[in-house]
Amino acid sequence: MAFQNFSNLDSVKKLGLLAQKPFDLTASDSFANKRIHRYVTSACGFDLLYSTQRVEKGVLNELQNLADEAELVKQFMAMKNGELVNKIEGWESENRQVQHTACRDVFRDSSSKRLPVIQAKAQLERLRIFLDDVESGVIANQQGQTFKTMVQVGIGGSDLGPRALYLALKRYQLPGRNVRFIANVDPDDAAEVLGGLDLSRTLVNIVSKSGSTLETLTNELLVRSAFEKAGLEPKQHMVSVTGEGSPMDDPGNYLASFYMYDYIGGRYSVTSMVGAVSLGFALGYAAFEEILKGAHDMDVIAEVENIFKNLPLFTAMLGIWNHNFLGCDTLAVLPYSQALLRFPAHLQQCDMESNGKSISRNGEPVGWKTGPIIWGEPGTNGQHAFYQLLHQGTTLVPVEFIGFRQCQYDRDLLVSGSSSQDKLVANMLAQALAFAKGSDNENPNKRFAGNRPSSILLGEKLTPYSMGALLALYENRIAFQGFCWNINSFDQEGVQLGKILATRLLDELISDKQEMGGFLNDESFEKQILQAAGVLK
Amino acid sequence: MAFQNFSNLDSVKKLGLLAQKPFDLTASDSFANKRIHRYVTSACGFDLLYSTQRVEKGVLNELQNLADEAELVKQFMAMKNGELVNKIEGWESENRQVQHTACRDVFRDSSSKRLPVIQAKAQLERLRIFLDDVESGVIANQQGQTFKTMVQVGIGGSDLGPRALYLALKRYQLPGRNVRFIANVDPDDAAEVLGGLDLSRTLVNIVSKSGSTLETLTNELLVRSAFEKAGLEPKQHMVSVTGEGSPMDDPGNYLASFYMYDYIGGRYSVTSMVGAVSLGFALGYAAFEEILKGAHDMDVIAEVENIFKNLPLFTAMLGIWNHNFLGCDTLAVLPYSQALLRFPAHLQQCDMESNGKSISRNGEPVGWKTGPIIWGEPGTNGQHAFYQLLHQGTTLVPVEFIGFRQCQYDRDLLVSGSSSQDKLVANMLAQALAFAKGSDNENPNKRFAGNRPSSILLGEKLTPYSMGALLALYENRIAFQGFCWNINSFDQEGVQLGKILATRLLDELISDKQEMGGFLNDESFEKQILQAAGVLK
Repeated sequence: MAFQNFSNLDSVKKLGLLAQKPFDLTASDSFANKRIHRYVTSACGFDLLYSTQRVEKGVLNELQNLADEAELVKQFMAMKNGELVNKIEGWESENRQVQHTACRDVFRDSSSKRLPVIQAKAQLERLRIFLDDVESGVIANQQGQTFKTMVQVGIGGSDLGPRALYLALKRYQLPGRNVRFIANVDPDDAAEVLGGLDLSRTLVNIVSKSGSTLETLTNELLVRSAFEKAGLEPKQHMVSVTGEGSPMDDPGNYLASFYMYDYIGGRYSVTSMVGAVSLGFALGYAAFEEILKGAHDMDVIAEVENIFKNLPLFTAMLGIWNHNFLGCDTLAVLPYSQALLRFPAHLQQCDMESNGKSISRNGEPVGWKTGPIIWGEPGTNGQHAFYQLLHQGTTLVPVEFIGFRQCQYDRDLLVSGSSSQDKLVANMLAQALAFAKGSDNENPNKRFAGNRPSSILLGEKLTPYSMGALLALYENRIAFQGFCWNINSFDQEGVQLGKILATRLLDELISDKQEMGGFLNDESFEKQILQAAGVLK
Repeated sequence: MAFQNFSNLDSVKKLGLLAQKPFDLTASDSFANKRIHRYVTSACGFDLLYSTQRVEKGVLNELQNLADEAELVKQFMAMKNGELVNKIEGWESENRQVQHTACRDVFRDSSSKRLPVIQAKAQLERLRIFLDDVESGVIANQQGQTFKTMVQVGIGGSDLGPRALYLALKRYQLPGRNVRFIANVDPDDAAEVLGGLDLSRTLVNIVSKSGSTLETLTNELLVRSAFEKAGLEPKQHMVSVTGEGSPMDDPGNYLASFYMYDYIGGRYSVTSMVGAVSLGFALGYAAFEEILKGAHDMDVIAEVENIFKNLPLFTAMLGIWNHNFLGCDTLAVLPYSQALLRFPAHLQQCDMESNGKSISRNGEPVGWKTGPIIWGEPGTNGQHAFYQLLHQGTTLVPVEFIGFRQCQYDRDLLVSGSSSQDKLVANMLAQALAFAKGSDNENPNKRFAGNRPSSILLGEKLTPYSMGALLALYENRIAFQGFCWNINSFDQEGVQLGKILATRLLDELISDKQEMGGFLNDESFEKQILQAAGVLK
């Protein structure tokens, strides 16, 4: 498969022409002919309402052509089937498979001979037994009491995804169980979390693929020292998720170590052991398997060539239309579900670390926009915060709404004839209409220009299954966009320079502290900034 | 004072020319002549390091000229002194004073004759007595036990600011005290918060200026019903913060009502009773007064004409340089302090609701960019998430780092010769250098273009005082930018259309539920979207 540059594609040229006069959502007949009913596509229990996007038949057809011309499904299948898609042609690069879909491809007999699937199944089985032992008290504290809390120590991919899903599904956690997270190297993060816990009933899960992540190692030592101060043996409270054979794969230090493999990137690792251990602890093994089922079903949907039957691909194409053709640099993801409060932060990571790239897979600078800036907060909260800019600001922001017809807890109340859930959903739909249609007014300050594009993704209820499907929808969408932009969505070379400079600054600080005399000269910008910041003697 | 359009200003034209060749941070001599040491300005215990911005003498002088030409300090003083700055000339508008600075102008004798200051002092005194009574048990539950938890129910300005400051200062909360927040109309928000509480020891603080905010009223009823179900008298557990004479100013329903006034906008209300009641409950009255002192000191700094001695004005000008002249649509605020985890969300509200406008104060469409999109998460977490795009993406994002030399808890540990706090600060400084300088490499995937602008705001320690100063720094910065763009930063007409449409959809849903037959016709887009969403029969 030869990689094609985005700007060379025929369909890209045609879309460029169509973008000169995009569909006018504010026209009086814009919602005629049952547009709203026709512009719906569904998968895995989700409906996507996209009549409020600036698209019509011509654009939609051309987006299908773009998907076909760039061979996006073929590339997705190549990824799934284990080709070395994490690479840059002709240059030193990671040269790895990308196999996070294998973590949930554990339900089909046909897949069972592939190594990543075999490894996923083996880890799941180990986890199932471990969780049974925790449940039954075979694994317990020194007094033989069961564990109630798990603290997950990890950062980036080892934190954001598991945390977002835990909060999303907290409603279903087993009685007496809960999970906390420590990520930041800021010592106040660990201090705050550990301060509120009964350590004797706490299991700690240290998560680092390499077993050498600075923040995680430091926080592990902080946690171990807290156990020691409490008169507890740390080892009796620690498990790890790490690469086989890493420094953290050590029975001398951990009750158990679960494995993650180099063919799964951190930001795609929620459905691997990185998420499995804490989500399984909180929700039970069966609920975690439901997450995998939802994700797997969405992975299967992603294999379809027809964009209208492939929700991840279709949302990928709508995103590219808004980003590359209508010129929007950012994308707001706005869940109308308080439980999804940290899902935008997870997507921010998964999308921006994947597609925030400037080099094609051929090693050449790209001449087109790659990944957008992803941000967002739950609605209706956001309506009372930043929506002013979305409605009347000078920068156009496309929106993806996510909502559910039912709430999770059954503690709703009819007030003035409607439930809170009714109000929540009505507000979400109303916002999409307001962005699209706008509204005129004699008073210029009360005018709404409209033509602000959005989609609404609606599910029945946020459950482990639908959460899994939602996660895989976005993971696969991100991969499709990366393929389309001809970039490698699976490495992260952009994080290296900061690490190198931080090490250099830290060495200078240590030298200073130990009065050894620094190694940087007074003219270096590294030394100057340490001095100007007042942290060097 | 005549309002001047941004694009007509002489200094704007000159800055436009200077922006054609901005200072090159990647040049080999870019950090010569002690640039890093010279480009520091300080106020209220904070140092701003700005050598990593693309500015030099010519640009800085012109930014001073811009501040002078647009009479920004004069406009700020007019606001402070009670002119009706919340208005649009020639059109119906709110026509109000903007007096949030009065909440903390309670330390100068010279201010004490102004009504907003008198009112602020009166409310503070009422709060002090109330908190004493809660402390001593004069105000207690039906069993005479003291209250331990406060639940603040509010949304937008009545939620984000108080929540951000509470999390920032949680380390200093009084023994046995804590605060929780309910904001979203999503019924799962209240269910999740209330589920974990001992209601008998809980005070609830309902916050709504109008006393009629949909979300807050609904959540108040959910909370009252939870108390009733627990066999508790709601009234014995409820206080309110609202406008004098609003439906929520009712001794029949609340133990006490504290007042907020229409001259304070929700997003600027943290230092009013909106933040005072819960922050005072958590931290004690004296600590809340420290917050006010910090804010007041920064308000005084904001009166200085010299941009190098006025931190809020200076950061306003740097923001305008990046936004209007270097063409960056967004701004990332990245606190290297886990305690500030929700401060970016508060700023997102305060800035975007204030300056996401398209109409000048003369009622004309603006021909220049107004407020940017504000987003961000704490570092070092973000380094493992979205920094890839900041370093190597195709969209340029200016960054504001916020950090502190000391941590809050004394639970740090030396690992490999450095403390976690050392690692945190070294990482922040290193990122700023990496963004600025970039780095070449034979491998195109390992190249960093550099010239990505940032500032570093460094304080000694995050305390009530420094938190207050930080808050006022941003509040005043936002006001300065609004003045400069000639927009009204104090209204929010952009939130109205969504509200109107939501009410219409909700009425239709209620009619449907009560089988009354709806009032919308089948062709209306409102009815269609309810049907397509599957929420209408």
